[in-house]
Amino acid sequence: MTKPLPVGATIGILGGGQLGRMLAVAAARLGLKTHIYEPGANPPAGDVAYAVTTADYDDEKALTAFGTAVDVITYEFENIPTSALDLLEKLAPIHPGRQALATSQDRLTEKAFLQELGLQTAPFADVADADDLAAAISTIGTPAILKTRRLGYDGKGQARIMAPEDADQALKDMAGAPAILEGYVNFSHEVSVIGARGPDGAVSCYDPGENVHEAGILRTTTVPAKLTPSQRTDAVLIAARILNALDYVGVMGVELFVTPQGLIVNEIAPRVHNSGHWTQNGCTICQFEQHIRAIAGWPLGDGARHSDVTMENLIGDDMDRVPEMAKTDAAIHLYGKAEVKAGRKMGHVNRIAPSAK
Amino acid sequence: MTKPLPVGATIGILGGGQLGRMLAVAAARLGLKTHIYEPGANPPAGDVAYAVTTADYDDEKALTAFGTAVDVITYEFENIPTSALDLLEKLAPIHPGRQALATSQDRLTEKAFLQELGLQTAPFADVADADDLAAAISTIGTPAILKTRRLGYDGKGQARIMAPEDADQALKDMAGAPAILEGYVNFSHEVSVIGARGPDGAVSCYDPGENVHEAGILRTTTVPAKLTPSQRTDAVLIAARILNALDYVGVMGVELFVTPQGLIVNEIAPRVHNSGHWTQNGCTICQFEQHIRAIAGWPLGDGARHSDVTMENLIGDDMDRVPEMAKTDAAIHLYGKAEVKAGRKMGHVNRIAPSAK
Repeated sequence: MTKPLPVGATIGILGGGQLGRMLAVAAARLGLKTHIYEPGANPPAGDVAYAVTTADYDDEKALTAFGTAVDVITYEFENIPTSALDLLEKLAPIHPGRQALATSQDRLTEKAFLQELGLQTAPFADVADADDLAAAISTIGTPAILKTRRLGYDGKGQARIMAPEDADQALKDMAGAPAILEGYVNFSHEVSVIGARGPDGAVSCYDPGENVHEAGILRTTTVPAKLTPSQRTDAVLIAARILNALDYVGVMGVELFVTPQGLIVNEIAPRVHNSGHWTQNGCTICQFEQHIRAIAGWPLGDGARHSDVTMENLIGDDMDRVPEMAKTDAAIHLYGKAEVKAGRKMGHVNRIAPSAK
Repeated sequence: MTKPLPVGATIGILGGGQLGRMLAVAAARLGLKTHIYEPGANPPAGDVAYAVTTADYDDEKALTAFGTAVDVITYEFENIPTSALDLLEKLAPIHPGRQALATSQDRLTEKAFLQELGLQTAPFADVADADDLAAAISTIGTPAILKTRRLGYDGKGQARIMAPEDADQALKDMAGAPAILEGYVNFSHEVSVIGARGPDGAVSCYDPGENVHEAGILRTTTVPAKLTPSQRTDAVLIAARILNALDYVGVMGVELFVTPQGLIVNEIAPRVHNSGHWTQNGCTICQFEQHIRAIAGWPLGDGARHSDVTMENLIGDDMDRVPEMAKTDAAIHLYGKAEVKAGRKMGHVNRIAPSAK
């Protein structure tokens, strides 16, 4: 049994973006300090952290100092170099653990893991070269989507294959990286479950949210999602099964496609998730605090939902709308990013309404 | 008309305690940075601030650097030395303004101001010496309470006078400081209104909360308070009248005694207030964000209450109960103070329930 971190202990966070920023604020609420490790200068999380290390992930001296200064390590993104993890895990516990990271860093490993658990996924095939791709297209059919096995996010590292003749260009788009071909799933909508698991095995899942994407980037999440009672139960059970199978500690995002044949797992993210930002204004304990509680060995908090919520991401020029939004009853959450760029997540807003329950 | 502070601007906060800490977190939510000025080392607010200046309030060099580095100045306590304000006001706007500070720093000035507004207060008299005190006791009667005009908080600088023969000891307790004698008010309970006013004159008040004190320190605040509809309206109108009279910008706490003769103003605090901590889990926009919005020239946010709440302060050894509380559905807010001391506010918890409305 893990001993809970005492007030005043320090949580190390790899990555200094908006997720790290909101984790830092949640940690402060529990009297815990945070130390951010981030290669980029002036990270958003640094504005609200106790300490910031600006260094690359191959800087062994900086990693060692960081790992020595903190009591537990977590992260806001899953693509942390293995060498950094090898070094850090000798200095402080890392939550969620290596198994969750290894599984989710590679789309092929992830899909195989999910299938072994008896969960439904899109049809998929490993693609190392043009022959693999041709064989995969003949098995899976088109339309399909070719994705790099590693390092993709927000629709990056993906190429659509609408017909077999798109194969060559799609393979070129992968730039030699190992890839996976995924068949299209005929789904009505996407939902996600934000689930948490503590070191004692306790599991707590938030009510599933319904996601709408635009150009590969999450646009809105709405709770409650359009789900039958049995679909809602299935969604939560799927998330719990994944959390338990990975002996997971922390918060995880599980994206699910809703189809007439049941729920199909799209992908998992071993961290707090954009589709869980609604919990900041819809629940007493938000996903960020829930993650901190889990990795700090505290009991999980109350994830019950007191309101209906729609979360909208503020992307790029959406920032121009903030002055008008500030006049409404929306809850605004900005990330303090210095520069507005097209496609960059700058903030989000939560709009709540009394729960219809 | 004040131009709203843009994302990335810096708010200077005088005082680095828990109120400064929660203001810093709220500012970050709006993409604003905070710079804490605090004489004590390692202030709680420093853990979540962009910058911290550790210096005394008579350090002109440090004050000048601070005032130059920030875009607006606010404070978490009202007893800021006048000389520091004189220097700072030349460098950046100070909100709430000097009039609010001057009024609330001195109990006598404050009472006179409230009476001029036509509001009810406890009977009071200026006490400079033993003759004044004897005269005041014969007018006001006993029991009464002698208080230093300035620098009192959490019951400090106060002496009860149950009978005229207590006068000598009470005057000695004041240690030569100018004092005010206040008559007892026969009240059934105390409520407080947390009100906000923007630079455009817009006023927004939270639902009044009902306060219970122990040993001079706030123990709990419960919303909704026991008030008739007309008392509730009166409470909010009193707060609005005070805010307008002071041309106030920011959040103010107004404590009111509930009596059969109506609401009597106990005291006002020109800052976010302990009795407003419930707003963190009962409203979309909490008092801390509301204060930041006001002083940053943003529109005031939605202060509507979505839940019933009881806030309980965690004082001194109450911290021993945190592990058990963490297992309940309470929302825990800790201040990260290194040392537990008797009477020290270490944190608070909010317990919410669906609104009975």
